[in-house]
Amino acid sequence: MKPPRVIVWGENVHEQHDAAVRAIYPEGMHAAIAAGLRERLPEARVETATFQEPEHGLTAARLAETDVLTWWGHRAHREVDDTIVERVHRRVLEGMGLVVLHSGHYSKIFQRLMGTSCALKWRVDGRPERIWVCDPGHPIARGLAPSFELAQEEMYGEVFDVPAPDELVLISWFAGGEVFRSGCCWRRGRGRVFYFRPGHEIYPTYFDPNVRQVIANGVAWAAG
Amino acid sequence: MKPPRVIVWGENVHEQHDAAVRAIYPEGMHAAIAAGLRERLPEARVETATFQEPEHGLTAARLAETDVLTWWGHRAHREVDDTIVERVHRRVLEGMGLVVLHSGHYSKIFQRLMGTSCALKWRVDGRPERIWVCDPGHPIARGLAPSFELAQEEMYGEVFDVPAPDELVLISWFAGGEVFRSGCCWRRGRGRVFYFRPGHEIYPTYFDPNVRQVIANGVAWAAG
Amino acid sequence: MKPPRVIVWGENVHEQHDAAVRAIYPEGMHAAIAAGLRERLPEARVETATFQEPEHGLTAARLAETDVLTWWGHRAHREVDDTIVERVHRRVLEGMGLVVLHSGHYSKIFQRLMGTSCALKWRVDGRPERIWVCDPGHPIARGLAPSFELAQEEMYGEVFDVPAPDELVLISWFAGGEVFRSGCCWRRGRGRVFYFRPGHEIYPTYFDPNVRQVIANGVAWAAG
Amino acid sequence: MKPPRVIVWGENVHEQHDAAVRAIYPEGMHAAIAAGLRERLPEARVETATFQEPEHGLTAARLAETDVLTWWGHRAHREVDDTIVERVHRRVLEGMGLVVLHSGHYSKIFQRLMGTSCALKWRVDGRPERIWVCDPGHPIARGLAPSFELAQEEMYGEVFDVPAPDELVLISWFAGGEVFRSGCCWRRGRGRVFYFRPGHEIYPTYFDPNVRQVIANGVAWAAG
Repeated sequence: MKPPRVIVWGENVHEQHDAAVRAIYPEGMHAAIAAGLRERLPEARVETATFQEPEHGLTAARLAETDVLTWWGHRAHREVDDTIVERVHRRVLEGMGLVVLHSGHYSKIFQRLMGTSCALKWRVDGRPERIWVCDPGHPIARGLAPSFELAQEEMYGEVFDVPAPDELVLISWFAGGEVFRSGCCWRRGRGRVFYFRPGHEIYPTYFDPNVRQVIANGVAWAAG
Repeated sequence: MKPPRVIVWGENVHEQHDAAVRAIYPEGMHAAIAAGLRERLPEARVETATFQEPEHGLTAARLAETDVLTWWGHRAHREVDDTIVERVHRRVLEGMGLVVLHSGHYSKIFQRLMGTSCALKWRVDGRPERIWVCDPGHPIARGLAPSFELAQEEMYGEVFDVPAPDELVLISWFAGGEVFRSGCCWRRGRGRVFYFRPGHEIYPTYFDPNVRQVIANGVAWAAG
Repeated sequence: MKPPRVIVWGENVHEQHDAAVRAIYPEGMHAAIAAGLRERLPEARVETATFQEPEHGLTAARLAETDVLTWWGHRAHREVDDTIVERVHRRVLEGMGLVVLHSGHYSKIFQRLMGTSCALKWRVDGRPERIWVCDPGHPIARGLAPSFELAQEEMYGEVFDVPAPDELVLISWFAGGEVFRSGCCWRRGRGRVFYFRPGHEIYPTYFDPNVRQVIANGVAWAAG
Repeated sequence: MKPPRVIVWGENVHEQHDAAVRAIYPEGMHAAIAAGLRERLPEARVETATFQEPEHGLTAARLAETDVLTWWGHRAHREVDDTIVERVHRRVLEGMGLVVLHSGHYSKIFQRLMGTSCALKWRVDGRPERIWVCDPGHPIARGLAPSFELAQEEMYGEVFDVPAPDELVLISWFAGGEVFRSGCCWRRGRGRVFYFRPGHEIYPTYFDPNVRQVIANGVAWAAG
């Protein structure tokens, strides 16, 4: 298998308006996610793109040469151009992988691929999240311990209104009493979609070694 | 379980413009589908609605009191009002069943629920189709023989670009050499979606007793 | 649908040897499970059978007239007669439903139907378990709140070594930090299998109204 | 990924007793299957083992260093030693891949992993079989045309009594009017199982380039 060509897409809005987020992610969340990928998948070609660029940095030519796109968005979901969503959608059905992160569950592209509301329960929290592997033979579980913990995270709880995942790899436990299907795989057309829960902007989640491992595994899996 | 309240939705366009279709379905294809349901599910409340009615016959009030909607469309797919599609979509996620028939694979509502292109291979044909049960314990297979045949049908062949069905009940064999996943079930939100392949407008498919049995079983299943 | 004919099978060993268990379940755990079913499914025919009876109470004639069998076992798993396991297996493939409870995960019949070890992580615990619905449209979730709690239970944690469930309905959260896929559905042959986690013999779990609701829903679902 | 270490297991009974089979497979069917793998996966280590060898050629030490086992058997299914079946089963749950070919559907190891009867409909035939790809993005479909044909094969038809495959890749069309789920994937424990239908001993199926491609893809997939 050839090394995957990856675009890490960042909405890059919180980082511009919120000093607390900028303090954690001075170069943007996408830069931290991309750094994690370069660290774990040294042979991959990893680039970034952001909401603010022309065509959100996702021209047809660029997507045509991309194997996996990762997506973090939140505030600007509704402002993402429908033409670009359509373009990304078509590329996924053609075979491009898509890794959707945290609040990306409400992105247009994820909703479109799922066909459901993608709603979930959530609460500003800041207590620990523990993430359990429930399918240890899955490629996305490679190199992980039976569980790992994030000291502080936002809570996402069931019901997560998505089609039953084709493969369920990770389940989260929250100190406040909730659970969540945190690592979910789907196949759509010739493409693969992986959703991974953690990544609230006010915590340094994308520097966590286990989170980086999961995202790298997810990218490798989504590359086919 | 209370008897389901069903709306049989018909595009009703071929019947208006094509004498050959009208000869087979003088009251419209929807009338034949509804008659089949009344025959097999005598306790159900079965009504019809068509593309030409205000709001395509699918007002919010009416949908709110509907347990299952069946959908046959073809020529007018692109003209179906997006507001109505949105409304039907929301009702399915709330729990309304949807039974999509034949060329309805390209309807806006089915594409939206699937998140894929819903494309397939097809050919004007007119030779036999044989439909096999591959999950005989499934409620949708109730009362069916191991296989049944339609003397003349249009051919639909793989690849059918839909998410892998949650349950696959029927597979078609075509005299010309193709196969097709003809009876497919999905769950979306709290709703159930069943796709059933046969039903080309120039053949009397919706008078066939086995086809009527499958559709009635599909409606009963989709009602939850 | 005709009211289901149910056999509640109880190993009935702990109750004979452990006064603490007998204090909670003076007539045996099977009696409490059966009482719950009679309460929630008043039209069902509910009988019991135990390990100690000839042929474990599961003669061919009796199984032939049974729609759903529920199974609680623990200490005597290895002593269950292979002939009876074979007989139950055949009946499930023919269409009989099977509801496997708690420590029944290690029963011969469940292992045989799953084809895996059915191992899991566990710990004597006694702290709360909270059970979340992750598929609220599923028949087994009927009448349940988004979550319910058991004040004291044994802990079962992932990895649960079973084939990925065809439908996942419930996920447990444990105060000690673990999660578990607690309500799982599979189809095998023409039969349906439901596994439901709680039910450690030293807690009054089978008197809990939510647990009774889940088991009754599971029996109704498994009856087809 | 390291190149997989593969054992091609052959029952090697028909070849010894039936001159017609020996004429097609003078070195045994396993030799032809192994040759196909060496041709398509030149980096893999491909060895053979047969029923007649001590421990059927499947010692614990050898299995411990095997990534994928392929299995063709027919006449001697019942004579395969239960100890070896148990050993192979354990290795699959630990992560070894298993590719089951044609009449291997009735092998002890496949039945054990599936938990169902694995029965199917069949007929001595000798007319063409056409195999369609229904999941073109799947690794097992790599390099295949939309369909390919075998001029002569035995017929296997639905119902195939196996758990619904986790991934369905290939569906067969038979000239006599039947269909079959011919390329099916399951995950059991940490292992992957692929079933591939064609391969009746009296036809030169294992020399067919498309069949070789599917088996090689199946081995690569099952290796994880």
